[in-house]
Amino acid sequence: MNDDAGRQPVMTNPRAERVREVARLATRSGRSRSMRFLAEGPQAVREAVRLHRERSAAGRDAVVHQIFATPDAAERHPDLVSGVPGVEPRLAEPAVIAAMADTVSPQGIVAVCHQPQAGLVDVLAAKPRLIAVLCEVQDPGNAGTILRAADAAGADAVVATTGSVDLFNPKAVRSTVGSIFHLPIVTGIDFADLAEALRRTGVGLLAADGYGAADLDELQDRAAARRLGVDAAAEPVLERPTAWLFGNEAAGLGDEQLEAADLRVAVPLYGVAESLNVGTAATVCLYASARAQRRA
Amino acid sequence: MNDDAGRQPVMTNPRAERVREVARLATRSGRSRSMRFLAEGPQAVREAVRLHRERSAAGRDAVVHQIFATPDAAERHPDLVSGVPGVEPRLAEPAVIAAMADTVSPQGIVAVCHQPQAGLVDVLAAKPRLIAVLCEVQDPGNAGTILRAADAAGADAVVATTGSVDLFNPKAVRSTVGSIFHLPIVTGIDFADLAEALRRTGVGLLAADGYGAADLDELQDRAAARRLGVDAAAEPVLERPTAWLFGNEAAGLGDEQLEAADLRVAVPLYGVAESLNVGTAATVCLYASARAQRRA
Repeated sequence: MNDDAGRQPVMTNPRAERVREVARLATRSGRSRSMRFLAEGPQAVREAVRLHRERSAAGRDAVVHQIFATPDAAERHPDLVSGVPGVEPRLAEPAVIAAMADTVSPQGIVAVCHQPQAGLVDVLAAKPRLIAVLCEVQDPGNAGTILRAADAAGADAVVATTGSVDLFNPKAVRSTVGSIFHLPIVTGIDFADLAEALRRTGVGLLAADGYGAADLDELQDRAAARRLGVDAAAEPVLERPTAWLFGNEAAGLGDEQLEAADLRVAVPLYGVAESLNVGTAATVCLYASARAQRRA
Repeated sequence: MNDDAGRQPVMTNPRAERVREVARLATRSGRSRSMRFLAEGPQAVREAVRLHRERSAAGRDAVVHQIFATPDAAERHPDLVSGVPGVEPRLAEPAVIAAMADTVSPQGIVAVCHQPQAGLVDVLAAKPRLIAVLCEVQDPGNAGTILRAADAAGADAVVATTGSVDLFNPKAVRSTVGSIFHLPIVTGIDFADLAEALRRTGVGLLAADGYGAADLDELQDRAAARRLGVDAAAEPVLERPTAWLFGNEAAGLGDEQLEAADLRVAVPLYGVAESLNVGTAATVCLYASARAQRRA
């Protein structure tokens, strides 16, 4: 426990205005008004604190705004309640933490965080090789799964265009299991603007589309053949800097996205299944690109 | 609407014993006592009816035991309430369907189905190339995602060993989006027995293990090199008949599984993420095998 936290009284009133202010981060309007969101539980708070310390050391903007923990949780996680630059963690009773959190069991600790949004210009200036783009993905669990898969595949950024679920929604944040703090996130951008900016920067657009004419496994075969010198003349596809477009759960990608894409790519279905969940399809697509790019 | 359904009165009492009997299929004991489960909504019922008709034409056991639909749903889906061999669909008021179903919106139609369980002996006699094995996977959504991915990757069967979540749990069934009716399912089998049977049949065991020494992308590279004749001497791994072992969400695979496996394989993590969700990892593994096997 650090000294500052020790000096302040333990918060006991779950109906206090300060508590309700935190609870409002569970709503989209509460988040967009404050540009903050809530990381719940020790794992998410740890990732927030890690990024906060990194940024602080580099003289950059803070990530963590405030940390609230029960006395028990503070004792269990001393690394999360002391030495967080510029943050004085507050102790609170379990009922207070529960009133703040969206989760049933936040395990006694939450952090109010600034939304770590990146600008598209900065993302593109860093010469990205792999970007995941959410186009009207609606389910927060799917959005979180895609973000986590993008992180695992080493993607350079995740972009959510206008009309997609808010990536800072509590369920989405939980589904990312900390990945929300791992890579640049760009939200609320118009698709036409994004497509133009990507094109200008030399990033190709691949549409993940169950009805696509290109087969992902064939593209992977082609990349392997090229890499192994068997078909060196084959035009690179997966090896190129790529933004994958993932669409709505029910309707898929819209005409605007399909028309803007350089290629419409289907994950092949070898069984009886008629489709894949968008989170699952995104994982397969992002890993296919990561593999082709890292071995090119 | 078929004639039989027309002749019976519309069910109106959500508290009738017959309705409660259906509702009990939401519990594990209710399902294991009757060896039945509930398919909810037109998509799941359609897959059930499709398999039922196929089996009936082949003189095999029934899949659908009973269908209940609101008059509206029956009118919207005539293919689901007539011509289902041996089944007399019953009309029921929306409140009755709601009382039967676990879902918030079953869209007016449910089917009580016999659990389409397969025997391990039959599965192995059919010379399977790809099997997904759930070892103490606990979350029904993850189990359903793995089953759906196994179907999409063209796997020959899904096996759940003792201690795994019940694949006929309503949430698991929903997560499969119909795939529960697409491939043989073997449940409640002891892992040691399974491992021995697989070994005897020449099916290799690959453990999906984040700490595994083998890297899935390297195995895929090796398969590609072998296929393209660049390294024809490389020993086949992914190309062989394979049972993938997927473990518990928190603890991963147990020692018994890790020791029984021929190889422990990690899905590489290229970013900051510390792990992948088991459903996501399973998808990547199953697709890697499907691709290597179909091109071998």
